[in-house]
Amino acid sequence: MELFNNDILLKIDRELNKYLDKENKLYDASKHLLFAGGKRIRPYLAILAYLLKKEDIEEVLPSAIAVELIHNYTLIHDDIMDNDDKRRGKPTVHVNYGMPIAILAGDLLYAKAFEAISNIEDSKKAHEVLKILSKSCVDVCIGQAMDMEFENRGSITLEEYFDMIYKKTGALIVSPVEIGAVMGECTEEEKRALCEYAKRIGLAFQTQDDILDLIGNKDKIGKPVGSDIREGKKTVIVIHALENLPKDKKERLLEIMGNNETTEEEIKEAIDILKDSIDYAREITIKYIEESKEYLKIFDPEKRKSLEKIADFIGERIY
Amino acid sequence: MELFNNDILLKIDRELNKYLDKENKLYDASKHLLFAGGKRIRPYLAILAYLLKKEDIEEVLPSAIAVELIHNYTLIHDDIMDNDDKRRGKPTVHVNYGMPIAILAGDLLYAKAFEAISNIEDSKKAHEVLKILSKSCVDVCIGQAMDMEFENRGSITLEEYFDMIYKKTGALIVSPVEIGAVMGECTEEEKRALCEYAKRIGLAFQTQDDILDLIGNKDKIGKPVGSDIREGKKTVIVIHALENLPKDKKERLLEIMGNNETTEEEIKEAIDILKDSIDYAREITIKYIEESKEYLKIFDPEKRKSLEKIADFIGERIY
Repeated sequence: MELFNNDILLKIDRELNKYLDKENKLYDASKHLLFAGGKRIRPYLAILAYLLKKEDIEEVLPSAIAVELIHNYTLIHDDIMDNDDKRRGKPTVHVNYGMPIAILAGDLLYAKAFEAISNIEDSKKAHEVLKILSKSCVDVCIGQAMDMEFENRGSITLEEYFDMIYKKTGALIVSPVEIGAVMGECTEEEKRALCEYAKRIGLAFQTQDDILDLIGNKDKIGKPVGSDIREGKKTVIVIHALENLPKDKKERLLEIMGNNETTEEEIKEAIDILKDSIDYAREITIKYIEESKEYLKIFDPEKRKSLEKIADFIGERIY
Repeated sequence: MELFNNDILLKIDRELNKYLDKENKLYDASKHLLFAGGKRIRPYLAILAYLLKKEDIEEVLPSAIAVELIHNYTLIHDDIMDNDDKRRGKPTVHVNYGMPIAILAGDLLYAKAFEAISNIEDSKKAHEVLKILSKSCVDVCIGQAMDMEFENRGSITLEEYFDMIYKKTGALIVSPVEIGAVMGECTEEEKRALCEYAKRIGLAFQTQDDILDLIGNKDKIGKPVGSDIREGKKTVIVIHALENLPKDKKERLLEIMGNNETTEEEIKEAIDILKDSIDYAREITIKYIEESKEYLKIFDPEKRKSLEKIADFIGERIY
């Protein structure tokens, strides 16, 4: 049994296409990343949450793809802000189309996301989804601003880090699940459980990403091992290390980090220094995944299986 | 009797503040232009349309200010795209806060606009307003892309120009009026009439702007007379001239346009060449204003007065 159901993925892409069915520079720029092989995890989560209570997914499609459109707008704008040249192996939108069109392409996807939810038939549901989606858009902006601010700051606590991650990447993992729950007419209790599930999935996804950067397979993660160290990125592992290492090791780590000339040897040395913190990140990732599955227990064992599999998939990569 | 009612303007600002009541770099950047003396014409129009049928404006405030938030996000992003340093006599957001924060500040206002309409109490109204606002956001992006494309193109027809203007600036004049009509529970016929009114107000506003650039008072319009000529901007006046002038005058006009070294004498010469086209722009502006007021005739004479005054205000500046 595949992790993702192909029939659902096709329906997601067909729905996305409905909103961007034009050929000109602006639309091409808007579609550049959107159809460059994203995993569609967000709309997929919305659909899986919906399927806990309903069967025919047509009703949930517009709101499911809305989150994917928002996610893609943030990628385009983030790439401009971070001055990144490549994403998913392709030149970023601003590299290909120029910065002005890239800003506008993001803005168009933003508008299309809200147009999509305006196509929900039931007004009460549209209204609830609007509340969830607009709130998560606010969170994403605040999270991105925090992330940029952290880069220019000496010390960050783990608490601040998790707050940032929860907003910057968690918001767009929790909101599709919550939207699926609303569209599927879950009870308040069910909705709360699903949000707790999604919150932990989102955090695990990020901590797992940070671990894979250090211990992953170069080909699988699509970038050289230790990129985060070279870029001086403050991941959960680094922040934990800076809070817990003895003074000499901490100083050595800071020496190695954020230096583009760093050798392979030094990366290995840093990974060795970070050993305990990698273990810490692994532990909390596993904890998040176990907890996330606990929250699903109120649902039918057959119906909750796909959501459990998504959780396990995140865990598997680091076991 | 003042054109704008101060009590209403205060309520608009109070409502705007509710959504941006934080002090940090991101929020400061978002508020930089918003509280730099905009006329609030868009939320004001929404409120006036609402007052045709209702009395207490509390209900319409969230959706009225949503359009102002959208308008302000477009200003911030447009200034980045056009690389403009100043607006309303102040440095633009990206000049003051850097480009990354400016992009994000626009994105935050965008989210806040949809958060504002999610606060409409009645779900049916929220749903209708969501449709109107998201559609106008799509139009604004398409209009801005057309405007950028026109800059790099030789000839543009008046029809193309009006289509661009209707999307780029008209959409955010029509949508607040339509939103006010929805919130005020206008009939379909009343809604249609108000949209026709607003469409003409929006076009008149633009053509009047183009006229004022050539015949206005430097201090009143806040920029040197003939700026559009220096920048080589394709206004309704220039497009009309290029379609109608004899070959020699057309060539001379193109020589003068888009040259930053252009002398005062040459600007005067260009204005002289454009004389008939300025008259044309004046005529259609007056036509738009007269027509716009015709559409209001189905409403109570006392209640429609403020909307008529807005129309006349636009006309007055060029009579």
